[in-house]
Amino acid sequence: MIAFYVRALAIASSVLFVGSIALAAENAQDNASPVFGVQLPEGYRNWQVISVAHEAGNNNDIRVILGNQVAMETYRKGLRPFPDGTIIARLAWKYVPSARNNEIFGQAQSFVAGDPTNVQITSKDSKKYAATAGWGYAQFENGKVNPSETLINTCFGCHNRLPKTEDLIFTHYAP
Amino acid sequence: MIAFYVRALAIASSVLFVGSIALAAENAQDNASPVFGVQLPEGYRNWQVISVAHEAGNNNDIRVILGNQVAMETYRKGLRPFPDGTIIARLAWKYVPSARNNEIFGQAQSFVAGDPTNVQITSKDSKKYAATAGWGYAQFENGKVNPSETLINTCFGCHNRLPKTEDLIFTHYAP
Repeated sequence: MIAFYVRALAIASSVLFVGSIALAAENAQDNASPVFGVQLPEGYRNWQVISVAHEAGNNNDIRVILGNQVAMETYRKGLRPFPDGTIIARLAWKYVPSARNNEIFGQAQSFVAGDPTNVQITSKDSKKYAATAGWGYAQFENGKVNPSETLINTCFGCHNRLPKTEDLIFTHYAP
Repeated sequence: MIAFYVRALAIASSVLFVGSIALAAENAQDNASPVFGVQLPEGYRNWQVISVAHEAGNNNDIRVILGNQVAMETYRKGLRPFPDGTIIARLAWKYVPSARNNEIFGQAQSFVAGDPTNVQITSKDSKKYAATAGWGYAQFENGKVNPSETLINTCFGCHNRLPKTEDLIFTHYAP
């Protein structure tokens, strides 16, 4: 009788476990970009720095561009095109003057990162994204994918105006 | 006779080896900041991102602030003061408008990292740097320490005007 209960419990646990995996997969799928299905890569906030930038105008942000291991190796060896598996993450924050720093420095000169705006992911898979020169795109706000198909379809338009010699990537490595 | 040569060679090698270590130590010492003796930490370019900033005015740079493991853990747990062993690296590059990006975006909005300017290191050791509230400072250009005592003595003056609740560190963590 005890053996029966143990077995029933084992089966119930398996069902729950498989159910959890299915749910996690579904959630990840839910959080993938339209058109490309690009997801937010795990641990991207800990990746190494490719470079930094400030976009004024409508963006008005300050940003860091990070790369996974494949991206960093390719940048540091100066190779192009980027191989499949390359992922580049662009993190942006509001561009905010720092009154505190300016007071300490004695002049208005200091601009720092305010609240996060969005994270954009660029992912290389030359087969999956053949129609967009091998690159898939996604944008996330607060960890949630931006579901706009209109937005995501603007990515390639700009990237495609970059030289082929740079493999349609904006950022240069900052030594 | 052969045994003698082998032994002589072994002794000669040891002398060379010990000599190399002494030389390396001396070189590292040579590349330490005046007043504090802070060195350029190995592998700092691969550290994780604390935040980014733009300093206009005389600096006119764009910068990323990186932290070693101790720094990152302290930031992420929201703890102050930083424990001994904390090292913060500030990498700066010339603040350069990108004509290429501006053309693609259709307006003047894009500023990127140009040539590197300098790297500043802030290192916590509450005993060694007791006179400066536990922090030691250094500045490097092209990997070589800036030997100016006048320069390095300006660091604490500004940092010391920051609130004690922030442990005299300018940068907040950018989530």
